[in-house]
Amino acid sequence: MKMNIVVIGANAAGAKSASKAKRINPKAEVTVIDRGNFISYGACGIPYFVSDAVEDVKELMSTAVGVVRDHHFFKKVKGVTVKTNTEVIAIDRAAKSVCLRDAQTSQETTLAYDRLILATGSSPFIPKINNVDLTNVLTVKSIEDAELLKRLAVHGSRACIVGDGLIGLETAEALCHKGLQVTVVEMRDQVLPGVLDREMAALVEKQLKQQGVTVMTGCAVSGLVGDDAVEAVQIGDMQIPADLVVLAPGVTPNVELARTAGLEIGVTGAIAVDKLQCTSDPNIYACGDCCETTHLITGKKVFIPLGSTANKQGRVAGINAAGGEATFAGVIGTSILRVFNLNAGKTGLTEAEARANGFDVETVLSPSHDKAHFFPGAKPIVLKLVAERSTGRILGLQAVGEGNVDKRLDAAATAITFGATAEQVSQLDLAYAPPYSAAMDNLIVAADILKNKLAGHARGISSHEVKRMLDDGDDFILLDVRSPAEHGEVRIEGAKLIPLGMLREKLEELPRDKEIITYCKISLRGYEAQKILDAAGFENTKFMDGGILAWPYALTTATTTF
Amino acid sequence: MKMNIVVIGANAAGAKSASKAKRINPKAEVTVIDRGNFISYGACGIPYFVSDAVEDVKELMSTAVGVVRDHHFFKKVKGVTVKTNTEVIAIDRAAKSVCLRDAQTSQETTLAYDRLILATGSSPFIPKINNVDLTNVLTVKSIEDAELLKRLAVHGSRACIVGDGLIGLETAEALCHKGLQVTVVEMRDQVLPGVLDREMAALVEKQLKQQGVTVMTGCAVSGLVGDDAVEAVQIGDMQIPADLVVLAPGVTPNVELARTAGLEIGVTGAIAVDKLQCTSDPNIYACGDCCETTHLITGKKVFIPLGSTANKQGRVAGINAAGGEATFAGVIGTSILRVFNLNAGKTGLTEAEARANGFDVETVLSPSHDKAHFFPGAKPIVLKLVAERSTGRILGLQAVGEGNVDKRLDAAATAITFGATAEQVSQLDLAYAPPYSAAMDNLIVAADILKNKLAGHARGISSHEVKRMLDDGDDFILLDVRSPAEHGEVRIEGAKLIPLGMLREKLEELPRDKEIITYCKISLRGYEAQKILDAAGFENTKFMDGGILAWPYALTTATTTF
Repeated sequence: MKMNIVVIGANAAGAKSASKAKRINPKAEVTVIDRGNFISYGACGIPYFVSDAVEDVKELMSTAVGVVRDHHFFKKVKGVTVKTNTEVIAIDRAAKSVCLRDAQTSQETTLAYDRLILATGSSPFIPKINNVDLTNVLTVKSIEDAELLKRLAVHGSRACIVGDGLIGLETAEALCHKGLQVTVVEMRDQVLPGVLDREMAALVEKQLKQQGVTVMTGCAVSGLVGDDAVEAVQIGDMQIPADLVVLAPGVTPNVELARTAGLEIGVTGAIAVDKLQCTSDPNIYACGDCCETTHLITGKKVFIPLGSTANKQGRVAGINAAGGEATFAGVIGTSILRVFNLNAGKTGLTEAEARANGFDVETVLSPSHDKAHFFPGAKPIVLKLVAERSTGRILGLQAVGEGNVDKRLDAAATAITFGATAEQVSQLDLAYAPPYSAAMDNLIVAADILKNKLAGHARGISSHEVKRMLDDGDDFILLDVRSPAEHGEVRIEGAKLIPLGMLREKLEELPRDKEIITYCKISLRGYEAQKILDAAGFENTKFMDGGILAWPYALTTATTTF
Repeated sequence: MKMNIVVIGANAAGAKSASKAKRINPKAEVTVIDRGNFISYGACGIPYFVSDAVEDVKELMSTAVGVVRDHHFFKKVKGVTVKTNTEVIAIDRAAKSVCLRDAQTSQETTLAYDRLILATGSSPFIPKINNVDLTNVLTVKSIEDAELLKRLAVHGSRACIVGDGLIGLETAEALCHKGLQVTVVEMRDQVLPGVLDREMAALVEKQLKQQGVTVMTGCAVSGLVGDDAVEAVQIGDMQIPADLVVLAPGVTPNVELARTAGLEIGVTGAIAVDKLQCTSDPNIYACGDCCETTHLITGKKVFIPLGSTANKQGRVAGINAAGGEATFAGVIGTSILRVFNLNAGKTGLTEAEARANGFDVETVLSPSHDKAHFFPGAKPIVLKLVAERSTGRILGLQAVGEGNVDKRLDAAATAITFGATAEQVSQLDLAYAPPYSAAMDNLIVAADILKNKLAGHARGISSHEVKRMLDDGDDFILLDVRSPAEHGEVRIEGAKLIPLGMLREKLEELPRDKEIITYCKISLRGYEAQKILDAAGFENTKFMDGGILAWPYALTTATTTF
């Protein structure tokens, strides 16, 4: 008997699961239902369409060789039937059928299934604030959103983006490129909350400001102001004028259909699935943004919707629905974005997440060039490695910089998946030639410093803590061990200069009864200085993690403070 | 009692081990002896100095902040004494001392050690051919070589490079940039032997030829021709005119000092060491290019000299010599180079190496864009994944292309180190956003295809085998399933065209009694075509691995063959 497989949702997860199911079971009848008009598009590409980096919206809906993935494509190439503009309004689990409604005719029909795959995706979360339905207030999720935003993105107008997550900042960049004045507003006290720890996020915030974006953190939006079209964003007593407001505070899974059908909804609010991507009904699978998954480090259920995960889960759901066997292991929370000149991302747990999950952690902040320093085009990146103190197991990596960070994130994601320790990461046989890395790759340097810290050889202190000590007027020596030229160019106000090469001769200039905190450009010399002071019997020395390159606060130059 | 640690050799491994030893044991007296004038330089950067990408040779000898790593630097910053222009002429293991000779005065002195570290490096292998001592015949290893080569690299003159390994091809590119006519000659029948399998190497060879380099493989050089300066390279009866010859057939470890002192030399001809980098004498360590190491996949001893490995081993030798504890795990043979517009490298075993080591393997050739295909600047790369057939364990990855290959190599190197299977690699939570990869990263796509092959769903055939079948006039159908436009633009001569979208309707055009080999641009549609034919009952179908993008042979265009 011919098997009927019905898939609800025709984007990443849905399209993938349908194609895979048909390939696994060529005799199956595979039907994909989508309420929208556009299918199988790359929603992640929308900011690049808005910024004109991608010119034609069709490119987001095409294969790599330029064929539009429309219902003809799915029929001819994949052997899969796609019905667009059709909403599934109910699932009858007992009868094993879905009730469809045609968006144009409102006609309702019934479609039987042997196996059902839910790929209903997610929707932008709309905050409960006043006047959220004003004109020119929009979200960034659908092709329709993308086209509207591009039309409204007029040079010189003022845009306010609510939410400083990945989509929010990508959209901020896109609108800046189009010549808009952009303000980003975030309720929490940093940009990219959940993606980066505070000091790493501060590097991104600095870049946003340098590019002319107004960044407001710790600001809760209470409402929007305007009659027909939006005119301002209300934050407490303050109004931020805006011709255009983008709501990007995150997404929520589309689970109503599943909930109404009595399927189990998980603790995260997304559809609960097992390793086979099977829901609480053995004939119904779910994949992509509508379902939750397992975090491989914490073992907890998480809702982290991403196109990469959606594709992997779609493959698994499609295979299992078609009678094959596949499992989806889980995720480790990897994410990345490009924002102006910076690349920023994380894999595994941030320090904050690790601590919140009860881990005792050691961390290292390691800035360096992304290639051999003498190679043209080498650019700085800052890595933050987080490890479990007792075992040395790597829990997470964050990386921010103008240079190549994705490579380090992918190697770390792989290492973390296999439970690698700092020792193991430091021994990885990574690809080395001057155009690609220094002889010791940034990740290996970071792991080596981490080993030194875990062994007690290296004692770091965060820039955040040093800033607090300076602000509080604590009695300590902040020791800059860079060259006089470097010190003259840019420095932290209040630091004493003894170049590393002079330190062994000038030890008597330093008091033995005060805490000494050393730093240099990246704190490699800072660490060497700590070791020299240790060897000379100084008992209270530390180096500042990440040096001046990772210092997110104001710096003094020869002529000015910035 | 103060410990004396003596290090022989002041480059990557030596400099690292000395600095680390001093940091671990600040009371130790650490002395580094080097017979040369220049110390601690990045030999890997020499081709970029020759090409003028790096302007000042001092950059190769400097830290990231521009401080020259000379003996002053080592004394002031590292607390380490460096004696240059000093040769160690003998090791007296019984007396625990080394005999030194000053290169200028020829005066001999004795230096006692508690621990000795050999970091004597490697030397270019000089082939036993006639007239190898003619003027303008040189190698690429030392700063002196670099300066001489740069001086001789005159626009319009003819250079012949003997050896198509990493250094040979990097030098070829450098000399091309300087406007020389370059010929590369390799004894074996492909470029980059030992680094890439033949079909992957063919992609590099194609690029070299497109850039104007004359590539001669399978050519043994019998001698050089000339009176004083070299005038030609002799290959059988043929003479290749040359104003300049670079010998780059590889390097040999400098082991004479160790051998004379009675230390164990390993099967590879390099100094034998254990995991602590300790030689057969418990007071003598070795690290870097002079010693052998263990290949983590085969378990065999290998000699793979690389700056990255030298640094890691130097750290381990330094720590152990100073009384600490550290081990070096081994390598997996990762290497990479940039040659013109291409990035090319490998990690783990090539197919040839895997087969030579007795593995039954499955492979996949997967070309694709390195970023989301719609993202500006996305460039093609070809991955070749090699796995053990019985277990699915990944044994190696090769990657060649204009796009980002190092990222995929590093993730694969990490995965291979932890014994990952194709299944595990396909589930990696890699960093995804359009500027960095497609939603399914190239590595994940390759692993998925590999899974399909291991499960018997996908049946590939190599371009090499298809070429042989075409050349032999075998009776089979080579089926191009791309669009008519793609086919018109460029195709393999003799192929029949049925676009994938028409295939289900045109099955009757295909004979059921002949072998059918499908292909497209990258063979993703080729694989889909194979699945459609399978489902329709065709019994002898395969797809050509890697499609037309990985086809290294001549192609036919609308007007011409190239």
